[in-house]
Amino acid sequence: VTIALTDIDHVGIAVEDLDAAVEEYRRLLGVEPVHRERVEDQGVEEVLFAVGSSYIQLLGALGPDTPVGRALASRGPGVHHVAYRVDDVASALDHLRAQGARLVDEAPRPGSRNTLIAFVHPKTMGGVLVELVEER
Amino acid sequence: VTIALTDIDHVGIAVEDLDAAVEEYRRLLGVEPVHRERVEDQGVEEVLFAVGSSYIQLLGALGPDTPVGRALASRGPGVHHVAYRVDDVASALDHLRAQGARLVDEAPRPGSRNTLIAFVHPKTMGGVLVELVEER
Repeated sequence: VTIALTDIDHVGIAVEDLDAAVEEYRRLLGVEPVHRERVEDQGVEEVLFAVGSSYIQLLGALGPDTPVGRALASRGPGVHHVAYRVDDVASALDHLRAQGARLVDEAPRPGSRNTLIAFVHPKTMGGVLVELVEER
Repeated sequence: VTIALTDIDHVGIAVEDLDAAVEEYRRLLGVEPVHRERVEDQGVEEVLFAVGSSYIQLLGALGPDTPVGRALASRGPGVHHVAYRVDDVASALDHLRAQGARLVDEAPRPGSRNTLIAFVHPKTMGGVLVELVEER
């Protein structure tokens, strides 16, 4: 059994001012964003730009006391997490758990775009907060 | 004219101990790395794991006084840069320059895997050090 990462789903980038960052990316890339969604239970609003089969995800915090708000306060803007696409988040979590990985989410939960997601602790994969994404 | 990012080429992850990180990723992902290369002029040794059409790039510093060595000293391990694949690095740089982007490399230079690359300053794209990669 392997974890079978099928693609990079997205790179999540924490930004101070979501609208300003979206405008900057639109201007630099010359393309329109493909999705915008407010995810209350994660305390973020996200905007996606498509890049091949992956996305650039710009993340604005819904308040200072949210994961992205705290990341902005401590480290400033930049990459917040890397998300890998998998066929089955539950079995990927089982595999990682069996390998002794430190998980943030012990079970899959709903993400944006009607996905199932789970986060893996940054201590596990070289200092990178990792998200697993299953498209449904 | 747009910059036309065709894919995420790789996510570059700075690690303290390259061999230990490679072993950890092998074990967690259950796959072998596809490439290893020492890039003297960038002061790094890189190991690539394939994920769909993209790569996870683990980066070990060749010394403390290198870009990755300094990043490790100041911020610890984690995402060092995000690389986007383009058809033509030179024209992507022209487009970014015309948009007022702050560039690290004013012209394409050789990268690993016989690619042409250029880096864009993190101030330009939301706090993220961006690399453009043209496969040849």
